[in-house]
Amino acid sequence: SNRARMLILCPDRAGIVATVSQFLYEHGANIVQSDQYTMDPEGGMFFMRIEFDLDGLESALPALQEDFARVADRFSMKWSVYRAGRRKRIAVLVSKEDHALLELLWQWQSGDLDAEISMVISNHDDMRQLVESYGIPYHHIPVTPDTKAEAERQQLELTEGKVDLIILARYMQIVTPKFIERFPNRIINIHHSFLPAFVGGKPYHQAYSRGVKLIGATAHYVTDELDAGPIIEQDVQRVSHRENVNELKRMGRHIERTVLARAVKWHVEDRIVVYQNKTVVFV
Amino acid sequence: SNRARMLILCPDRAGIVATVSQFLYEHGANIVQSDQYTMDPEGGMFFMRIEFDLDGLESALPALQEDFARVADRFSMKWSVYRAGRRKRIAVLVSKEDHALLELLWQWQSGDLDAEISMVISNHDDMRQLVESYGIPYHHIPVTPDTKAEAERQQLELTEGKVDLIILARYMQIVTPKFIERFPNRIINIHHSFLPAFVGGKPYHQAYSRGVKLIGATAHYVTDELDAGPIIEQDVQRVSHRENVNELKRMGRHIERTVLARAVKWHVEDRIVVYQNKTVVFV
Amino acid sequence: SNRARMLILCPDRAGIVATVSQFLYEHGANIVQSDQYTMDPEGGMFFMRIEFDLDGLESALPALQEDFARVADRFSMKWSVYRAGRRKRIAVLVSKEDHALLELLWQWQSGDLDAEISMVISNHDDMRQLVESYGIPYHHIPVTPDTKAEAERQQLELTEGKVDLIILARYMQIVTPKFIERFPNRIINIHHSFLPAFVGGKPYHQAYSRGVKLIGATAHYVTDELDAGPIIEQDVQRVSHRENVNELKRMGRHIERTVLARAVKWHVEDRIVVYQNKTVVFV
Amino acid sequence: SNRARMLILCPDRAGIVATVSQFLYEHGANIVQSDQYTMDPEGGMFFMRIEFDLDGLESALPALQEDFARVADRFSMKWSVYRAGRRKRIAVLVSKEDHALLELLWQWQSGDLDAEISMVISNHDDMRQLVESYGIPYHHIPVTPDTKAEAERQQLELTEGKVDLIILARYMQIVTPKFIERFPNRIINIHHSFLPAFVGGKPYHQAYSRGVKLIGATAHYVTDELDAGPIIEQDVQRVSHRENVNELKRMGRHIERTVLARAVKWHVEDRIVVYQNKTVVFV
Repeated sequence: SNRARMLILCPDRAGIVATVSQFLYEHGANIVQSDQYTMDPEGGMFFMRIEFDLDGLESALPALQEDFARVADRFSMKWSVYRAGRRKRIAVLVSKEDHALLELLWQWQSGDLDAEISMVISNHDDMRQLVESYGIPYHHIPVTPDTKAEAERQQLELTEGKVDLIILARYMQIVTPKFIERFPNRIINIHHSFLPAFVGGKPYHQAYSRGVKLIGATAHYVTDELDAGPIIEQDVQRVSHRENVNELKRMGRHIERTVLARAVKWHVEDRIVVYQNKTVVFV
Repeated sequence: SNRARMLILCPDRAGIVATVSQFLYEHGANIVQSDQYTMDPEGGMFFMRIEFDLDGLESALPALQEDFARVADRFSMKWSVYRAGRRKRIAVLVSKEDHALLELLWQWQSGDLDAEISMVISNHDDMRQLVESYGIPYHHIPVTPDTKAEAERQQLELTEGKVDLIILARYMQIVTPKFIERFPNRIINIHHSFLPAFVGGKPYHQAYSRGVKLIGATAHYVTDELDAGPIIEQDVQRVSHRENVNELKRMGRHIERTVLARAVKWHVEDRIVVYQNKTVVFV
Repeated sequence: SNRARMLILCPDRAGIVATVSQFLYEHGANIVQSDQYTMDPEGGMFFMRIEFDLDGLESALPALQEDFARVADRFSMKWSVYRAGRRKRIAVLVSKEDHALLELLWQWQSGDLDAEISMVISNHDDMRQLVESYGIPYHHIPVTPDTKAEAERQQLELTEGKVDLIILARYMQIVTPKFIERFPNRIINIHHSFLPAFVGGKPYHQAYSRGVKLIGATAHYVTDELDAGPIIEQDVQRVSHRENVNELKRMGRHIERTVLARAVKWHVEDRIVVYQNKTVVFV
Repeated sequence: SNRARMLILCPDRAGIVATVSQFLYEHGANIVQSDQYTMDPEGGMFFMRIEFDLDGLESALPALQEDFARVADRFSMKWSVYRAGRRKRIAVLVSKEDHALLELLWQWQSGDLDAEISMVISNHDDMRQLVESYGIPYHHIPVTPDTKAEAERQQLELTEGKVDLIILARYMQIVTPKFIERFPNRIINIHHSFLPAFVGGKPYHQAYSRGVKLIGATAHYVTDELDAGPIIEQDVQRVSHRENVNELKRMGRHIERTVLARAVKWHVEDRIVVYQNKTVVFV
């Protein structure tokens, strides 16, 4: 595949689109999609995502990037180029709930999720058979108060430099700032509430107790502050007084897996830019 | 109209439905709709709503109620009977935003809202012409820090014993516990967020700042604790990074008026039972 | 489990609820949920669903049913009683698309679908390994124009009297009136459009060609007329000009599996009454 | 205001974005938003919408358009430029149902609909007072089988060259091909069903009769074939067996007005391109 994706972030001013598109044209690239967003044409931040085709992408890309660096400098751009053909490598962390993982496996197998699931890591051994039946390595790393540091060391050894994205698919352990700083904006968590409502533990109990009429789920990048990272996607489901906590959990599983799968899809398709703890998602 | 509605709340045990339906049958009432909900058949609370037709309702109802009191005693019921033909009288309190009021006026005029809008009270005079064009009395009661107590006295004088329901249709003043205790579970507020997210002031600013992907609105009964009363209805609308605060407000107005109108409709149709700061809504 | 469910259909008139609930009470049954619907209190049809608990259900049920027959006669009722503990046996028919089957398997495994998947029958052998890994028998019955009658004979031999419900989970063959008459209102099909729009083949192509802004799926009972049976459930998903036919198919799969799973759940929980080619669904 | 919007439609090929954005940059225009869509990078149709700011727009625009004609020629473009400050003039045609008109009036008054409602034309006199209270001229043109031709003549005399957009806001008369050809892709109708389901008359009766579980509404451009023009927007609302035809109508009104208002908003903001009886909507 000769398809590439470029993400750009810079202060807005006149001429950015013209310059970038002219640059790509002169380098033989054909723009097949282009999205942009400006917070304010008068000096706000400007965001852009471009998909382009370029003959002989693999060999031509280094020169294009080198040349683009000069353009980027001129506009103070933060930017990245990704080859669509280079599928992102994913490590999924799970505990005992399997629905979020199952959805990812299923979308991956059906070709809807264009990525490589490189491994599954769990603090329990329950899902080994399921995961290995898909030909995916399964690593059981128990986590106890005493072994927490050692567990993290093992997790980092398995993942650092070897995967591009960490997914916490209902992983019920808190990851440390040390772990997070190795994967900045590259750890996606699914929280089982409509954030910022019901931060922290047992959100379905909290939702039941408050008597809300909709329950939700939130996929977000993980930052040091619990459940406070940039939100990627959210969705909700109507409930009534009739649902008890267990039924909320059951209905919630459906939202969780849908929301997480959408967020992961957008990430691996390079559709997300993070700025000031918020996401710009080009869909 | 010979239609009546009965709301019942009591500890669950065997025989309630049989007893109540047999009672109504023996008194010549024909049940046209019956809904029930039990928190737990083993001693949880039981809720029931019955619509029935009874020939000569107006003259027959007192005796039926008197007789039913004995049944109710046996089951420790809290209960009420409402005549569908006796439309509830509403006072709407507004400030400067007109969309929530407009929706109510419009649904009322088209016959969708089966109630009587008896008056509109506002701390501003802006909507007088609009309201009076519908033939509805408009009371301008300014509220300042100094006149707050006097304003409340006037509001109570206008409403107490004269209306059945108070609607805060984007009324930007806080009502006092004294006012609330005169209308227990009979003041409906529309809060412009998906509660319990973004309690308090400027929820759209809060939503923008947090970068949520859905905004919402919540209709709830007013209690002494701000934005913490029993939730009647909620809904949400998808947003993206592209919407700024003003656009969130614009989109939110649409949700607010829809959610409030639904909640009011359910209240005036006697579809809501409040229990432990939550609502059971029979729809 | 001592839980049972009763479905009733009869012309409306005074006293039905009273009589039925009194009957159940006198027979020692405790009503835990009761829903009803009348098309018109003045002689329209009346529908009722009751869940009740009865000590020693298995041994007590025959006498209760015998006694109830007299009540039913008096009101010209069509009625059935189902024991909740007797899980319905399902045969799933599939072709090459696996998503609808996978959702059923997953909900079944997680306990969300309270039924027994007795067998999967397919005109292809592709999903054998998947299905057998769940411990479910897989029958490969090829269908060609020449073998169609023989294939149907085999399908009937496998299913008749041995399963309670047939699910066409994207089964791409048309079932014959002869097959349908053996399972009246007990064959559920998922059609990949919002019926009655896009009846027949290639509905996503039709949807793309018409330029609709929402695509949908419909679960319905199968009758002799193609895609015209009683609708159980429908849902839709927003699309735009950007989605081509393949992307509509991909997005559609998500709606199809969700809608089918909801319909099946309602069927096996005895929540559906069919009347005049429409469904009354008590949820 | 110096804001303008450009809509472009042409066969896709390399260099379009680069050329257009370079052109605008060289003419001093600052692109504030740009959306594009290609049906196929290899020779499919290409669609583009650009919002730009240009100092002294009114005086500078003619030269820019003249120069752009040469660019457009080179790429075989169909294109238009609209000044955002020149609000489109609207004629609303209504019959007896007022909800769709009311929503437009309300959005117009609150500033959400950035257009000029120049007149309301009706075959009934019922809404005169309402419309005139907004300061909008009201023309009562009765339509009978005998006067149909004369009525159309009057409608054309009032509108042709004087308004930019015709809205059929539940106008219950069929407009003729002659009328349609004067306003190509500039007549928006709201149809009270989810097209292509329930074409023609009494769609809520049809929906009730078919037993659908969602009802919908569709805003589309009017073409010679009834209810078959390019769809702009659609939405749906969940219903159940409990709703009779009148309740479907009541619930439907809410969808109709919402869907119509969105479609009109997109039209007056120049967000819609029509191609092969379908719409590309840049939102």
